[in-house]
Amino acid sequence: MHIYTRKVQYYETDKMNFVHHSNYIRWFEESRVDYLESIGLPFDKMEADGLLSPVLEMNCKYHRACTFGDTVDIAVAMTRFERLRFGFAYRVTDHARGTLLAEGSSMHCFMNAAGRPVALERSAPQLAERFAAVHIQDTAQWEQR
Amino acid sequence: MHIYTRKVQYYETDKMNFVHHSNYIRWFEESRVDYLESIGLPFDKMEADGLLSPVLEMNCKYHRACTFGDTVDIAVAMTRFERLRFGFAYRVTDHARGTLLAEGSSMHCFMNAAGRPVALERSAPQLAERFAAVHIQDTAQWEQR
Amino acid sequence: MHIYTRKVQYYETDKMNFVHHSNYIRWFEESRVDYLESIGLPFDKMEADGLLSPVLEMNCKYHRACTFGDTVDIAVAMTRFERLRFGFAYRVTDHARGTLLAEGSSMHCFMNAAGRPVALERSAPQLAERFAAVHIQDTAQWEQR
Amino acid sequence: MHIYTRKVQYYETDKMNFVHHSNYIRWFEESRVDYLESIGLPFDKMEADGLLSPVLEMNCKYHRACTFGDTVDIAVAMTRFERLRFGFAYRVTDHARGTLLAEGSSMHCFMNAAGRPVALERSAPQLAERFAAVHIQDTAQWEQR
Repeated sequence: MHIYTRKVQYYETDKMNFVHHSNYIRWFEESRVDYLESIGLPFDKMEADGLLSPVLEMNCKYHRACTFGDTVDIAVAMTRFERLRFGFAYRVTDHARGTLLAEGSSMHCFMNAAGRPVALERSAPQLAERFAAVHIQDTAQWEQR
Repeated sequence: MHIYTRKVQYYETDKMNFVHHSNYIRWFEESRVDYLESIGLPFDKMEADGLLSPVLEMNCKYHRACTFGDTVDIAVAMTRFERLRFGFAYRVTDHARGTLLAEGSSMHCFMNAAGRPVALERSAPQLAERFAAVHIQDTAQWEQR
Repeated sequence: MHIYTRKVQYYETDKMNFVHHSNYIRWFEESRVDYLESIGLPFDKMEADGLLSPVLEMNCKYHRACTFGDTVDIAVAMTRFERLRFGFAYRVTDHARGTLLAEGSSMHCFMNAAGRPVALERSAPQLAERFAAVHIQDTAQWEQR
Repeated sequence: MHIYTRKVQYYETDKMNFVHHSNYIRWFEESRVDYLESIGLPFDKMEADGLLSPVLEMNCKYHRACTFGDTVDIAVAMTRFERLRFGFAYRVTDHARGTLLAEGSSMHCFMNAAGRPVALERSAPQLAERFAAVHIQDTAQWEQR
């Protein structure tokens, strides 16, 4: 599990005065990129190695709004790891007050440069092992919260 | 039900060569705004009347990628209408080939300027009637597909 | 010269209630893509032919704001065409009232897949001829306005 | 003068493999917001006090591309301060190598809630003094580089 903290940007707000809901999807990406990098599994290296990682599914529930001037914490954990797919869970909270702002989840796969889905344990067994370990630890931590 | 057609923009693609997944969430918004306007229920008028409509939930499954040069059709229908919430379903297909690219759904509520949830049938009974009628028709049409 | 018309999207507004200034830069791109496509020079085909076209410079003056519910016309013309660079001028006006909202300009070059600047008259002489003709006509039309 | 450092996000790239040019305009905003906050003049407080600050002009020259995996430094300075307008200059460099990626400038004004331009020295004399001092120091520092 990982906490990614970032400020809300002015250009992320909309005329309702709050962050536009589509930006949470981008924050989820920021948080999982930051998470994977923090454990030595940077996305840009994976892509350079020919492993693309398209998004299969994205879900978000919005509980409270936030706006420019706020800072948010995004908790991210790898709560799913299957042969061909893996997934993350997210919780966005207000950094100052701890209020829950949004919860989400995403599913992803690995794909080679030819666009074919890739079973990680075959094509990149070491990476698969790392993912499996992260998944076990994260699942435990995420449930405990 | 309504079909909203639009071209993919260059700035909507990412380095994987395809449209970034967050943009589908924006296309969903475009399609429901266009839909409501097409049936005489424009969002900008509702907002001017003090009715804001925040997003409660957003879901998307990505089936196939699309990219710059493509045109997409977004089918949108109001498949949920409850006392305090209403929701849409979406299907994104490639305009030229008809291939299914993505499916999604969203939930929304109405909120007054003070940020309180609003029961449409009380605060805007005529609008509530329109929504109810749209909902009945759309649900039937959506299931048939 | 070409007029590209589009509606302002909700997600393009910011908490000041107006379209965020960065989006005009995206509208400029939309308008020149639409323009080039309308005269049979689509960007996606050029890219498929190995001709990339990075942006060298971007300028915009903002005169009046616009917001969700508005429709804008973007007039675009190729007002510069040199050996290694070409440029466009833009005028954004309110579709309903004709008010001037913004004016801008951009400079671009052509680059091959290896990232080298390309002289169009050498590497794609037919395209260069088309661009030259468009440039002459547009410059005349743009000045007259 | 102020240096604002941030990572390039995946969603900021486009199919040419590099950051889309419109995002630099957003980075400029991030850097000036961060700058003003760092010297005790946060934008969100100014807005809460009824001072809006629309953008009048935006310019950017793009020298080299950057992409996902890169970190950028954005140097920002208040190089213009007039009765009704003030402006910033920007330099974007690669954090690791120091290479110049882009240079830009922007002009802004202050506007009250009614949308009228505001002379800072009248309506907010203390803020005007701060801005004047920042402007003098920044202009000197910026030229020296």
